[in-house]
Amino acid sequence: MTFIQTDTFLLRGYDCDATGRLSIPALMNMMQESANRNALDYGIGIADLATHGVGWMLMRFRLRMHQYPTYGQTIRVVTYPTSVEKYFIYRDFQVLADDGTLLADASSTWLVFSIESRTMIPLPGFIRALHVPPSIQPLPKLTSKPDFLTHALPYTTAGQVEVGWFSIDQNQHVNNVAYVQWLLEKVGDDWLRTREIAEIDLVYRSESHWHDRLQLSHATETTDQLLHRIEQAETGKEVLLARSAWR
Amino acid sequence: MTFIQTDTFLLRGYDCDATGRLSIPALMNMMQESANRNALDYGIGIADLATHGVGWMLMRFRLRMHQYPTYGQTIRVVTYPTSVEKYFIYRDFQVLADDGTLLADASSTWLVFSIESRTMIPLPGFIRALHVPPSIQPLPKLTSKPDFLTHALPYTTAGQVEVGWFSIDQNQHVNNVAYVQWLLEKVGDDWLRTREIAEIDLVYRSESHWHDRLQLSHATETTDQLLHRIEQAETGKEVLLARSAWR
Repeated sequence: MTFIQTDTFLLRGYDCDATGRLSIPALMNMMQESANRNALDYGIGIADLATHGVGWMLMRFRLRMHQYPTYGQTIRVVTYPTSVEKYFIYRDFQVLADDGTLLADASSTWLVFSIESRTMIPLPGFIRALHVPPSIQPLPKLTSKPDFLTHALPYTTAGQVEVGWFSIDQNQHVNNVAYVQWLLEKVGDDWLRTREIAEIDLVYRSESHWHDRLQLSHATETTDQLLHRIEQAETGKEVLLARSAWR
Repeated sequence: MTFIQTDTFLLRGYDCDATGRLSIPALMNMMQESANRNALDYGIGIADLATHGVGWMLMRFRLRMHQYPTYGQTIRVVTYPTSVEKYFIYRDFQVLADDGTLLADASSTWLVFSIESRTMIPLPGFIRALHVPPSIQPLPKLTSKPDFLTHALPYTTAGQVEVGWFSIDQNQHVNNVAYVQWLLEKVGDDWLRTREIAEIDLVYRSESHWHDRLQLSHATETTDQLLHRIEQAETGKEVLLARSAWR
């Protein structure tokens, strides 16, 4: 069986930012929700994995915003797996307006970890056996090590965050979207008020937990591109690296 | 014309906290959204008021949680104005399960401020003229000065928050729900992990803005009740006072 997930979301006030546009964290939450529902249909939901002592971890996520919807609009989120390998499963997303206009798309890479050892393991057989929908046109696979990981730019400290209760999900670790909110809130005021994100590319490196103190820093790559880093404040362990492109 | 607003919300993953229950901030966001839609029907939405140079401000909100819904459940939020006075308009909410079970209810008090002077003014005529639905049974009106405002308990500092971009709404001030998330995140870990809120009673005292530094403090009133205070860190100006009751 193959499944393509389609969910409709009516944009509510709190889905939108102070400019009235759909916020990136709200959109990512919707995409995450659709991915979870699609995984349930495939029998590879969070609960299905938990019975095998394993869990999902997002490793890569790249979102491209073509056009921002606003308050009161209805959007459709479409998602499906595109490929399965020994260690990784790939998933694409499309975000469509009522009239079919492509508002955004995204590609992502997921791995499976052992709940006991908290380390990556090969995808279990029941996930490897999954058939992807036959008629899809996958976006290019994301590389596991994009070039910005090794850019020797001067990062400047942008502040710290202590992980609060409402940033923890049912896996008891920080949900993937919370990081994006934190790093975007440290961008300069003018960027947030007068510009918009064209693309954001994320590399998740390790999980973090309730009450962890995270250190946020960023670097200016070009007049339109920023690099972001989130690490454990105490140990310096990398949690997330990202590049954002703005227009 | 009278209008009773009913909206249906399917609980998504990010509406729920780490225990799997609907989170209080997510519920309050839904209630706020329904209130906005109901105001639109009455011709007293945010945009309607803006054309008169005025805006809504929430003064009081009391939420009682009877039973918590969980991920995947559908809830109905019902809201309507219950009474209009010279300065205040009152609004009630009911939150219902599919089978009609009352999961939560809330009462609230709203005032109107002049956008130019940022001070309270009497409700304009077009709001005073509003007719409330005839068949409703209003909850008791909230007093403007509940007893906990003057309790001389020792408050202890719980931390500071700097207002970030995603806590600002389209009125360019902090949205009402953000405060509740901040004050709840400062409650002791055991309360968050093992207990649940039975009731939360809020008194909004002044607005706050992007980059404001807010000081959070709380006091233990009984083994089941906490008091909360949010004030401007620099000036000590009160922003929000609250009481929460837990079970």
